[in-house]
This record gives sequence, C-alpha cells and structure tokens, in this order.
Amino acid sequence: VNTLIVYAHPEPTSFNGAMKDVAFNVLTQNGHQVRVSDLYAMDFNPVAGPRDVQRRVDTKRFDLLSERAEAFRQGTLADDIVAEQEKVLWADFLIFQFPMWWWSVPAILKGWFDRVLMSGFAYSDSEWYDTGKLKGKRAILSITTGAGRRRFAPQGLYGDMDERLYSLQHGTLRYTGLDVLPPMIAWAVEGADEATRAAFLDQYRERLHTIDSVPSIPFLGPADYDDRGRLKPGRAIVEL
Amino acid sequence: VNTLIVYAHPEPTSFNGAMKDVAFNVLTQNGHQVRVSDLYAMDFNPVAGPRDVQRRVDTKRFDLLSERAEAFRQGTLADDIVAEQEKVLWADFLIFQFPMWWWSVPAILKGWFDRVLMSGFAYSDSEWYDTGKLKGKRAILSITTGAGRRRFAPQGLYGDMDERLYSLQHGTLRYTGLDVLPPMIAWAVEGADEATRAAFLDQYRERLHTIDSVPSIPFLGPADYDDRGRLKPGRAIVEL
Repeated sequence: VNTLIVYAHPEPTSFNGAMKDVAFNVLTQNGHQVRVSDLYAMDFNPVAGPRDVQRRVDTKRFDLLSERAEAFRQGTLADDIVAEQEKVLWADFLIFQFPMWWWSVPAILKGWFDRVLMSGFAYSDSEWYDTGKLKGKRAILSITTGAGRRRFAPQGLYGDMDERLYSLQHGTLRYTGLDVLPPMIAWAVEGADEATRAAFLDQYRERLHTIDSVPSIPFLGPADYDDRGRLKPGRAIVEL
Repeated sequence: VNTLIVYAHPEPTSFNGAMKDVAFNVLTQNGHQVRVSDLYAMDFNPVAGPRDVQRRVDTKRFDLLSERAEAFRQGTLADDIVAEQEKVLWADFLIFQFPMWWWSVPAILKGWFDRVLMSGFAYSDSEWYDTGKLKGKRAILSITTGAGRRRFAPQGLYGDMDERLYSLQHGTLRYTGLDVLPPMIAWAVEGADEATRAAFLDQYRERLHTIDSVPSIPFLGPADYDDRGRLKPGRAIVEL
C-alpha cells in the first residue's frame, strides 16, 4: 500500500508532528511505502490564482477554472500542483494530519485542497462521489483539537463533530471519490498531560495496524437524490 | 458606520468583484466610511506560523499560541496582522465577500481568520461568543456558489446551507462576539446568465440599503449550555 501523509503544522516537535511520525513508522513497519507532504517545510503556496498556471490563455482577465482546465490539458500547470497531484495518483491511502483551526483545516491545507484537488484532476461534471476520479483510494483525517469532546456533542456548543467535518469528509474528500475512514481525533491536546497524549498516540498506532480492514463511512452520493435534489424514498442518511 | 470589506477573489472583473463594488458604492452613498482588504491584491500571507511575529521568545521550538500572545503583549506582531487588526477595530460592520470553494472560504481568507482573529485580540478564555472581544460589531458573509440552491436543501446532497456555514458563522464570527447577519448568497453564478447575475446584484443592493436594521442570527452561546456541554432545559436552537 502506498500512503501519502499531507501534514500541516509549523512545528516539527508538536503533537501533530508526533502523530505524523507514528503514522510514518507504523505504516513503514507494516510494509507500506510512505511519502510525506510537509506543507510548512515545503513552504507550500495555498493561494489558488494566476500562479497555478505557467502560461495564461487570457492575459487580461483571469478565470481560475478555465485557465487551470487548459493548463491541465496542455501540461502547463504550476510545478507545485503537478508534484502534489503525482503523489495523490501514486497513493492508495491519504492521511491528512492537522490541528483544527476555526473548526476546519489550517489555511495551508485548505489551499492544498483548493489547488491540488482541481476539476479535471480529482473530479469532473460527470465524475464525482462514487464516480470521482480518485475512486478506489482511501483517506482519513487525523485531527488535534483545542476543545474537549463534550463541546462537540450533537447538542453541544460546537455541534456534532460529524457535522463540523461534513464539508471536509463528504464535501471534499468523498466528492473526489475517496473512501473516507472514520477520523482519528486527539481531543483537547493543548492542555493535555503527557499520559493523555501518549494514550492518543497508542490509540492511533493501534488503529493504523488494522487500517487496511477498517470500513469507510457509508456516505450517500448523487444517485441517492432525485432530480430536484431530494433524497429518494428508502434512502436514509446513515448515523455513524 | 465604518465598514470593512474583506474580499477574496483573484479577478477584479469577476462577479465577486462586482458584489464588492456594489457594497462599496451603496454603503458609501449611504454615508458609511468603507475600507476594503483586497486579499489577492495585497498578496496577503494566509499561513499562520513563525512569520506572525517579529521576534521569537523560543527560537528552537515554535509554539504558535504562546509566541503570538507574547508578541501581542509586546507589540511585535507581524505588520500585516497589525494592519488588519486595526481595520477590524475601526470597523462597526464587516463584510466577507468570497466564492465558496469546497464548502468553505478560499485559503487566503481562511488564513485571514487563522492569523487576524487570534486569541487575545478577538477572544480570550473568558471572552467569547456574547462576551467576545469584537462584541457590538456586526458581520455578514456574502457568498457566490457554483452549485444551485437545491443541492443545499436540508435533505440535499450537500446538506443544509446553514449547517455548511455554521463553522464560519457561529464557530468563527460569532465566537469573537460579532453579531452575524443572515448571509447574502448568489447561487450558481458560474453558469448564470446576465439577467440572473444582475438580479443578484439588485437583491444585494436592496439588502444593503436597510442593512443597519436587519436583525442578527439568534445564535446560542456558552451560557445556554451546562457544565457538561449540554443544552440547558428550555434553551432550543432557533430555526432560521
């Protein structure tokens, strides 16, 4: 199994760094090939825009979708996008390791989604969700939070964690065809003691040992909705 | 009324640019002072990290929260953060104008949230939601989407738009104390004809004329939850 870890934290000795190292070590020991996109170390540019293409079709008005589509066809996408897309194609399994900032990913990782998972590469008008271009590959979010688990209860202040992650897990990863595994969440690590942190690392190690047999989240897709966008009879959103 | 428009789109002649111009013109005509943070034109750095501070306390290990807190106390935050924070303090009303990418903001705007709305400036451990440091100010999301309204129905493929925006509207803006107005959404503008686009601009103009009297979204806050993170009896999440 080829694994790509997309890792977004500014400090190598952080708990996020430790989580990334655990994944690298366990998977390597279990015979995976592992590559890491260390976005901070790479000084990855997260800003989708004119720098996404080497040559512009229209030098006056910049239309992101059409310029990138043309550059994708011509092989003139920016080198940093191409390098990441090659890693994604190589990988069977993608791990996204990041601290939750404002209930989402750090901007440097948001930009990875904005730029790398572009139309034509990761999906098209007719290839999305079940038929997305990355179908057959698997992915997992591995997250650290500042807040504790209780805040994310279904009736909690921050709402249900599954809801907070829906735009990432369903709206982004699953959109491209990826099978999404239940997330690994290390809760409230900022103020946690060493024992708690060690327990999270142990829990992650254990999950990674059996990761190849973990079922993915049974998300619905476009085929479950009618032409007016409503759930078809008999299709129900599965509670996790 | 002092208004700050935080605008995130790479192309000035885009529909997002037109929405930004409408807001600038209407509010200026109505006697507002208006400033614009044009994040793309500013080449705003969205990556929270060591560049957030001018001097580091710990030059070996970078801890984002403590380094920024110390720099905030010492007045040694990065100039670009200070400039944005000054605009936020100046403003009574904040407009965020952006295209929805992956059911969220473009990375350049996510980084504005990550860096500008930092602990100590926008909130603290005891100042959040109703008591957040930006309380008394108002904010609105003005969004363009690629997908149509139906997809975002409560039972739609993308789920309810209120849910998709909860992390931004409640988890980010309201967290800092801002009163959040119902969002302006221009649906499916990518493929829309000129008449449809013009109608969205008209709708936005009309809303802006009466924006000072629009009630904010009645979000719940920490006082509505018990110590175990659960809703107190009699407190119910208000349907919009």
